[in-house]
Amino acid sequence: MKRVEILAVGSELLTPFFLDTNSLFLAGRLNSLGLEVSFKTVVGDDEDDLVLRLEEASRLADLILVIGGLGPTADDRTREAASRAFGRKLISVPEILRRIEDRFKRRGLPMPASNRKQGDVLEGAEVLTNEFGTAPGQWLEWNGKSIIFFPGPPHELEPMFDVHVLPRLEPFRRGYLFHKTLKISGLTESAVEDLMAGLYPVDPALEVTTLAKPGQIEIHLRSLSSAGRQEAESLLRPLETALLARLGENVFSVGGESLEEVVGSLLRSRKATLACAESCTGGLISHRLTNVPGISESFIGGMTAYSNRAKEEWLAVPCEVLVESGAVSARAAESMAAGIRLAAGADFGLAVTGIAGPSGGTPDKPVGLVYTALAWENGVEAVKNQFLGNRDQVKFQSSQKALDMLRRRLLKIRP
Amino acid sequence: MKRVEILAVGSELLTPFFLDTNSLFLAGRLNSLGLEVSFKTVVGDDEDDLVLRLEEASRLADLILVIGGLGPTADDRTREAASRAFGRKLISVPEILRRIEDRFKRRGLPMPASNRKQGDVLEGAEVLTNEFGTAPGQWLEWNGKSIIFFPGPPHELEPMFDVHVLPRLEPFRRGYLFHKTLKISGLTESAVEDLMAGLYPVDPALEVTTLAKPGQIEIHLRSLSSAGRQEAESLLRPLETALLARLGENVFSVGGESLEEVVGSLLRSRKATLACAESCTGGLISHRLTNVPGISESFIGGMTAYSNRAKEEWLAVPCEVLVESGAVSARAAESMAAGIRLAAGADFGLAVTGIAGPSGGTPDKPVGLVYTALAWENGVEAVKNQFLGNRDQVKFQSSQKALDMLRRRLLKIRP
Repeated sequence: MKRVEILAVGSELLTPFFLDTNSLFLAGRLNSLGLEVSFKTVVGDDEDDLVLRLEEASRLADLILVIGGLGPTADDRTREAASRAFGRKLISVPEILRRIEDRFKRRGLPMPASNRKQGDVLEGAEVLTNEFGTAPGQWLEWNGKSIIFFPGPPHELEPMFDVHVLPRLEPFRRGYLFHKTLKISGLTESAVEDLMAGLYPVDPALEVTTLAKPGQIEIHLRSLSSAGRQEAESLLRPLETALLARLGENVFSVGGESLEEVVGSLLRSRKATLACAESCTGGLISHRLTNVPGISESFIGGMTAYSNRAKEEWLAVPCEVLVESGAVSARAAESMAAGIRLAAGADFGLAVTGIAGPSGGTPDKPVGLVYTALAWENGVEAVKNQFLGNRDQVKFQSSQKALDMLRRRLLKIRP
Repeated sequence: MKRVEILAVGSELLTPFFLDTNSLFLAGRLNSLGLEVSFKTVVGDDEDDLVLRLEEASRLADLILVIGGLGPTADDRTREAASRAFGRKLISVPEILRRIEDRFKRRGLPMPASNRKQGDVLEGAEVLTNEFGTAPGQWLEWNGKSIIFFPGPPHELEPMFDVHVLPRLEPFRRGYLFHKTLKISGLTESAVEDLMAGLYPVDPALEVTTLAKPGQIEIHLRSLSSAGRQEAESLLRPLETALLARLGENVFSVGGESLEEVVGSLLRSRKATLACAESCTGGLISHRLTNVPGISESFIGGMTAYSNRAKEEWLAVPCEVLVESGAVSARAAESMAAGIRLAAGADFGLAVTGIAGPSGGTPDKPVGLVYTALAWENGVEAVKNQFLGNRDQVKFQSSQKALDMLRRRLLKIRP
């Protein structure tokens, strides 16, 4: 096995509005076999273009995954193009037609005539059953190349790949992949790089990639072993352990969880309750927390106090705090955190106030200045932050910082 | 001009974690010249693979836009690969080196030796200045093909394209494109299709694409004229007018605005104020509204009343409503809307309560059952909705429905 190509078909994928995302799924599955993707190509529904790219792919790659163009409409030309590119006749398979007719029958509909062509299969190709749609997949062996055709809808492609294709790719396996993602908050990318100094592996079976995302740094770790998945995991462990020792509590997740999921679990395990008071984040912290199923056990509610009036009346922020220090100040943030904690009768009160931009900044209080605060039974603390970026980015980083303050405090409280 | 190919370079674009998004920008710009993209290709940093794909692209396409691989590291091989593919020597250009050194000098740093190779240009290629980074672009004419090399970071590529490339693509122009997007709320995709019956254009210069997105339908209209942009606009107008007449107030935006932006403008122009009470949306409505700059004039604040306690204490929802009808009921939604309106002293109170899932559903009140309510000076109304999808999708559709209720009422109120 030398090269793998993913070829996505569809004119909409060449517009400014759409990207092919099936290739992300397929790349992940191929990686699990130790296979890397060499090329990804997108071509429209033009049959001549499609023939060109199928010929190309079968010249440059050895395993080719073709996505889409198997629908019933006149635009769907993958079957016809493949027939031309590989010199194989299209043969109508009665059994497939029966399956398609059955699908329509179960919904009480006659099969439209246009669907007949979905029963056409390349001569010599093996049919891959589609449990969730009308278009079957096809597996063609041609001149020593394996060319596999998939329908485009992800809910049809993904189970088809996992059930009918993945097990049959075993002979192509180059190894067993194990991967883990460390997510880090509260450190800059360069601080993470400094802490990782000397830990970058020399072993080519280990791979480390550091990604800076808004409000968090991710370290993607991958190991490949020819012996098995457990061996790949063992191979990775010393590096993972060393990284965790260096990065300590800055790592908030090793299993893919988001920060709000981690905070949700910590609250639940400690039977602690939370309420939020938000100004510049405008409900984003609440929104993120309530994306976590089961959070209603711990999350009492939140207030978006966007106006001074709401800050005073809902959160009991004293008027003199707003007048003397302003709504964007450590005092206001602390007062909001204490106020929401009291109003909700919660164990923790989390608050954010700041200037998300694009306007509203002053030399003293520039855009991106955000105070995050946490109130608990015995105290309250506020942190001053200066974030960069547009309104969205400032909102997200602020919510991340606030959730991280809570996470760090929860880690110091035994359940 | 027959075919255009966009070739993106970078091994990270072949992993499960990243997609090339520069091609969306480039496709939009090419479309404005009446040019369609024929192929998009992604290749990793392997020099041999890159040579193969560059040769391929120059064989199949006439205009080739190559993105990335122009950085200073050992991984950046686009220059070397192009040199091999097109048989052109790399020549170090002192003027480029001086520019790069200057960039470092302004930041008080010496230029690392690795950056020297960014001064290398293919023999005969024209240099495209990079105002926002170190790697210049290159424009190579080769065997009647135009091959243009861009740096990968969008903030470097986009201005380089607009300033140095777009004006020079005039000779390739196939026409003038005009496009418009109608965004629709409150109708299903099939209802929109029914209303559009007979309006699909036969003129090949007009193109209509309907997209169903969560909580809204979009109709993308495009027209192409060889005479000019205004002519293209005129060409589209009859269709646009007919569609607007059929779809009426269900169209909430014709200029690209989001529903929260539309609601924000309507509130501002009517000098009306708003507050929200959210249960299952958990702050999402507040979050969406506060993504709109300037919303603080109209948006007083919101409460996420996730617990019954918060509903009673913060929003004055009567205990008997919660006991008799439950928190997910029309009565509770109306009471929340009226409660937040009063608590905030706002003109409008918007409320949502429902079951976002994945658990919490019963036969009587299944997952996806959501009540949205609006309170105003003279009344309150609640709507019962049954949404499909996962937690995220139910939350989003609920927020969309609530914002749309407010939009429709605001449209009936003269400013």
